[in-house]
Amino acid sequence: MQLTAHTDYALRVLIYLTMHTEKLVTITELADFFGISRNHLVKVVHKLGVKGFVRTVRGKGGGICLSRPAADISVGKVVREIEGHFQMAECFNPKKQGQCAIQNGCGLIGVLGNALEQFLQTLDKTVLSDLVKAPMARNGIGSLDAAQRNPG
Amino acid sequence: MQLTAHTDYALRVLIYLTMHTEKLVTITELADFFGISRNHLVKVVHKLGVKGFVRTVRGKGGGICLSRPAADISVGKVVREIEGHFQMAECFNPKKQGQCAIQNGCGLIGVLGNALEQFLQTLDKTVLSDLVKAPMARNGIGSLDAAQRNPG
Repeated sequence: MQLTAHTDYALRVLIYLTMHTEKLVTITELADFFGISRNHLVKVVHKLGVKGFVRTVRGKGGGICLSRPAADISVGKVVREIEGHFQMAECFNPKKQGQCAIQNGCGLIGVLGNALEQFLQTLDKTVLSDLVKAPMARNGIGSLDAAQRNPG
Repeated sequence: MQLTAHTDYALRVLIYLTMHTEKLVTITELADFFGISRNHLVKVVHKLGVKGFVRTVRGKGGGICLSRPAADISVGKVVREIEGHFQMAECFNPKKQGQCAIQNGCGLIGVLGNALEQFLQTLDKTVLSDLVKAPMARNGIGSLDAAQRNPG
């Protein structure tokens, strides 16, 4: 069981933006920092924009930033919106419903659905700013930025 | 987010065995009933045996059955044992640890781990016998069996 790579990357992008509220961040910067392909990040950032988590400023000096304070964005909402589906077993798939031979006598979908809801509700209680362990993180990232800006 | 097909099939096999404690069940019967490939089921049933959930009786008239009462087998234990891993994001993968640029300042692994634990603990509270909605299920399955045994 795992989240999709897209959700994983989306969370990392949002955490990075939470650590860098002082500036606009480019996709190139994110790709270099995380070592994730630019193509993947373009799709992830586009989806984050469509879902209203980030705001894009176009043009020279442009980039992305959080659309609202990190303390107002719950991790649960991000995972719910970005993860494509939560079809824990085949019986969750609308296209496959009615095809499992035991479905009429089986309570699996209810039990897995309840467990999934507990998973998401736990994430609902955490906001992006909770994920950043300041000052260690901010210092760590800041130092790396400085080193990258002034190599040697 | 989803469970692997192996876990999905393992749960279905165990539910079927819970509905049929009166007899030994063959892999051919399971494959025909669920429309799942025999090859997949051989692997799933083997793993269920290794993990101690089912018992195999070899030879003519042989088959598999639950190794203990359905009321003593928790869904959480089955999912924990059969699902290969619970690496919700890349930072859960031991081989990738140390590779994420923000890990020192990031609380994601703790939050996702906590949510995962809530998911599993919810499943821990349910046993196999809870999943079978008798008498509808037992009647439904029984009727189908009878129809299959006596076509026409």
